[in-house]
Amino acid sequence: MGVSGSGKSTVGNLLSQTLNIPFFDGDDFHTKSNIDKMSSGIPLNDEDRYDWLITLNKLAKEQLVNNSCIIVCSALKQSYREILGADIQNKVKWVHLVGSFEQILGRLNKRADHFMSSALLKSQFDTLENPENALEINTRLKLKDIVEKIKETLEMKSEFGLFGLGVMGKSLCRNLAQKGFKISLFNREVKGSEESIAVNFKNSFKELEGAKPFNDIEAFVNSLQKPRKIMLMVNAGKITDMVIEDLIPFLSEGDVLIDGGNSNYIKTKERYDYLKTKRIHFIGVGVSGGEEGALKGPSIMSGGNRKTYDVIKPYLEGIAAKDANGLPCCTYVGEEGSGHFVKMVHNGIEYVEMQLLAEVYTIFKTMGKNPNEIADIFESWKEKANSYLLGITVDILRMKDGEDWLVDKILDKAGNKGTGNWTIIATANLGAPSTLVASALFSRYISFYKEERLKANKNFNSNTSELKLNPEDFLSSYQFARIINHYQGLKLILEAGKAYKWNLNLSEIARIWTNGCIIKSDFMGELISILKEDENILNHKSIIDELKRFKPSINKIVAACVLKELPVPCLSESVNFLNAYTTANSSANIIQAQRDYFGAHTYQRIDDASGKFYHTKWKKQTN
Amino acid sequence: MGVSGSGKSTVGNLLSQTLNIPFFDGDDFHTKSNIDKMSSGIPLNDEDRYDWLITLNKLAKEQLVNNSCIIVCSALKQSYREILGADIQNKVKWVHLVGSFEQILGRLNKRADHFMSSALLKSQFDTLENPENALEINTRLKLKDIVEKIKETLEMKSEFGLFGLGVMGKSLCRNLAQKGFKISLFNREVKGSEESIAVNFKNSFKELEGAKPFNDIEAFVNSLQKPRKIMLMVNAGKITDMVIEDLIPFLSEGDVLIDGGNSNYIKTKERYDYLKTKRIHFIGVGVSGGEEGALKGPSIMSGGNRKTYDVIKPYLEGIAAKDANGLPCCTYVGEEGSGHFVKMVHNGIEYVEMQLLAEVYTIFKTMGKNPNEIADIFESWKEKANSYLLGITVDILRMKDGEDWLVDKILDKAGNKGTGNWTIIATANLGAPSTLVASALFSRYISFYKEERLKANKNFNSNTSELKLNPEDFLSSYQFARIINHYQGLKLILEAGKAYKWNLNLSEIARIWTNGCIIKSDFMGELISILKEDENILNHKSIIDELKRFKPSINKIVAACVLKELPVPCLSESVNFLNAYTTANSSANIIQAQRDYFGAHTYQRIDDASGKFYHTKWKKQTN
Repeated sequence: MGVSGSGKSTVGNLLSQTLNIPFFDGDDFHTKSNIDKMSSGIPLNDEDRYDWLITLNKLAKEQLVNNSCIIVCSALKQSYREILGADIQNKVKWVHLVGSFEQILGRLNKRADHFMSSALLKSQFDTLENPENALEINTRLKLKDIVEKIKETLEMKSEFGLFGLGVMGKSLCRNLAQKGFKISLFNREVKGSEESIAVNFKNSFKELEGAKPFNDIEAFVNSLQKPRKIMLMVNAGKITDMVIEDLIPFLSEGDVLIDGGNSNYIKTKERYDYLKTKRIHFIGVGVSGGEEGALKGPSIMSGGNRKTYDVIKPYLEGIAAKDANGLPCCTYVGEEGSGHFVKMVHNGIEYVEMQLLAEVYTIFKTMGKNPNEIADIFESWKEKANSYLLGITVDILRMKDGEDWLVDKILDKAGNKGTGNWTIIATANLGAPSTLVASALFSRYISFYKEERLKANKNFNSNTSELKLNPEDFLSSYQFARIINHYQGLKLILEAGKAYKWNLNLSEIARIWTNGCIIKSDFMGELISILKEDENILNHKSIIDELKRFKPSINKIVAACVLKELPVPCLSESVNFLNAYTTANSSANIIQAQRDYFGAHTYQRIDDASGKFYHTKWKKQTN
Repeated sequence: MGVSGSGKSTVGNLLSQTLNIPFFDGDDFHTKSNIDKMSSGIPLNDEDRYDWLITLNKLAKEQLVNNSCIIVCSALKQSYREILGADIQNKVKWVHLVGSFEQILGRLNKRADHFMSSALLKSQFDTLENPENALEINTRLKLKDIVEKIKETLEMKSEFGLFGLGVMGKSLCRNLAQKGFKISLFNREVKGSEESIAVNFKNSFKELEGAKPFNDIEAFVNSLQKPRKIMLMVNAGKITDMVIEDLIPFLSEGDVLIDGGNSNYIKTKERYDYLKTKRIHFIGVGVSGGEEGALKGPSIMSGGNRKTYDVIKPYLEGIAAKDANGLPCCTYVGEEGSGHFVKMVHNGIEYVEMQLLAEVYTIFKTMGKNPNEIADIFESWKEKANSYLLGITVDILRMKDGEDWLVDKILDKAGNKGTGNWTIIATANLGAPSTLVASALFSRYISFYKEERLKANKNFNSNTSELKLNPEDFLSSYQFARIINHYQGLKLILEAGKAYKWNLNLSEIARIWTNGCIIKSDFMGELISILKEDENILNHKSIIDELKRFKPSINKIVAACVLKELPVPCLSESVNFLNAYTTANSSANIIQAQRDYFGAHTYQRIDDASGKFYHTKWKKQTN
């Protein structure tokens, strides 16, 4: 299908020879009355076309009995295509030859035997209703390539492969299939533990009807159109390297591997470099949203070569969540492992958001409130500080386990999956003070030493006494700490961008975090425009005003918790951070003097702007 | 020299042939009266020996005019040796053949033509005064090896080489030379920046008279006795690898390289493995004490193969500081990079000790005290909480710069040299909550953003208001935080020991930290015995009692600082840490519920001791 001049007949003829199946030009099947009408210069109306379209539909059905065939027809309207494909919807493969108006007009006017007025072509473009499920092929491509591409599609090769059917992999498959992408799925076969996973999964969901399941790597790779686009959804680390090695023998030059796992950004760069030597493209993609996000639309952060990104962009943008303006929450972040870096920081911010809610919960609990009462308070916060994590915490607190609250039955030993640790490592390597992620991470570590804690609790007779605090101060404290958390996360990304020479757009990163991901929140939406004005949100007037407004509350809450011996590391740290950050003259002069004293590390002076380094022969200490 | 039967004549003869210089047996030079006396069975007294010793001294001087010679003589007393070496002290090389009583007696009794009673040999051993500067050679060695060893020494080969004459390298050289070790020194020659460093350095200090300076690597290596012992005092990182590569072509199997820089412990393991393939031994040694410690006696933490350590032990123990019992502050820590790991944690503890003093200083300053008044307070703390860092801080605060205090002129941008970062990275990799090192490190990072701070100070109008606090509470707060700091550092070492299967002795590590190093303190001395009882100091009654006693004070101080907007991250974090550590039921149940909600990460239940993992289908959030 396609407008006049898109090259349907030429392509159809060559394809017919290539596939060795009959070719039919739709124009040859008009009724006598239609031919008469057209000969008289009267344009056909939809009624005139009806019988003709029925004829072509009949032709297709007849041909299908034995084999298949190629029929060309402009088929500009959806209603025409419905008639053409009636009763054989699942067997018809639409190929739409597309080109711009200027492009097609140019092509037509080059033809010696043909003339079409600009107005006539314009009416065709006006009539054209783009089909949803057609293979779109740009007429600018070489004839040979057009035919090859159609051949691959007709041979039912898949557009996109997904390797690894864990929680996230499965959800992404369903998402891709729901968006109409033709996909191949792979999961390894391990006797006794992982059997027939791909087949069973495909059979469990209607949308996977057209998907092809595999447990053989070679067959999986060969089922894909070239250049192959394979997304790995396997455990980060050594498994990823092993899977890449397993795939390499079957890949061809120009194929694209997409690592959708939570890989370390440094490893992503190494894998990119390694695969380059094999002429395989590699893109590291951070996918956030958990199981539900992956299914309904995750937030996707892609890093690597931009041209390679463009090859996979339609798929990633197709499955991504949509922001408030309907744009996909998916972007090209930058070179190398920048996608995975940004995903890592996302998780760091997530650690803190979770910890803050846990700390506030603890205070409320100590004040004698039950989970449902705490959920009511959190519920009331949605108006001013809504976020996905706040929402799920409300659900969690309301969940019962028989007569009890389920949350009271959960063992308080928190796990972590690596990205929290990596954030701290990155922060140490880059010299950015991510104090809140550190506090949140360490809180999980401390929680992990449950047995030591129980012993210490006895040894120290720790029993937090009753707390009386003003309820209004809590929301302000929570909001204060969240701002500092977002500042620190963005600062870490900014420092990485400088250090690795990635050209990052913080506002765009905030935008793709407004939906689909775990840290989506109303505040994230506000950050889009704030970050356009200044990459340092602590320079922004509205943020400064808010922090000033919230500060007295969090000061009170933290001081009260310290006096009552309640651990609130993240809340405390957010206060200490801003206090340090807004200190014009810090105590680091003492540190510098000490370093110079014992290690001759030298120091600079406030009264010498040249930055010269001084060393003092300090008096010998006498102790 | 040596007792009868130690093999002096045999060794002397073979050595004379090897070196092609004359051999003299001292016994051949006795005066007639002495020979008569001995023939009559009368033992010689010191007066009898006087002329004989003078004769041998004269003989040596005569021989030295043309060349050199070998003289054997029991020379058991220091007074004999003084006569023998009179006027030629710097040219005499003493070689002492040593063996145990049983060993020598056995040798004597094997001789067919000789008999010595056990009593007579015993009297020789009783008379023997061990020489201080002799080459000691065990008679158990093969004759060939004894001769080869003496030859090397006589050829003036050095015992120990030091590569890299920076601040620390120079101090270690002087320390080694002062302890009587024969050393070679190397520094590269860079036209215009590093010229004649080794020669000039050697010429600047009397104790380096016997040291050999080099700027040629091959000559440096060849100047050392085998197996060569070369200590690298170069910048950690790539430089260390480059220097190793430069040395390799000139080294022989069995030579020992000692990395005395602040290398990353993981790199130390890699270098050990790499050099093993070249049959070169490698020891990673942490050296603490700064310039002064390196000169007067540092604390030395060695990691690697224990047998290799034994080869270099005399040198390292010789130059190390001495603890309260006179034992060297030097130990074999364990396998692989454990020495560098422990040094890294030492530096982490140091970061916190420095930061705590800086924080307390800030509070006092805010309370209106001048540096000298603060020094007075710190001075008064020495009684209960003395440490090297407290002492130097007193000195620093008293230092004037004209009419002003020098400390007020120092720019408050703190540097760091890598070990602080690495501690945080290690803590993240090992899952140990080193919250105080993180706070101290991040405080330096924040201090580094001076320009941002100045801007923020204006934006936020931050001016800490006056503080009124009880002076007695400060010392308690400081002591409290220091205990938590030491707990966390030791915990990190403990976790590393478990993870890497190093067999670590925490009490011994505390012992070598009682002197020579930057974190030496009275408290460190107390930890030696505490750690013998329990590796977790928070289980120890005296520590628990102290923390309980100090806690109300630090609670008050931290709460007041928070309310007055004064940054005290390390003090705060120490309170939060103990509060979290002593919490029987933490808020990590919330974190686990959240993780299970969005990522199906599962959780365990407090009412199921089997450790089974549960997953809940949480209610969909509605926001």
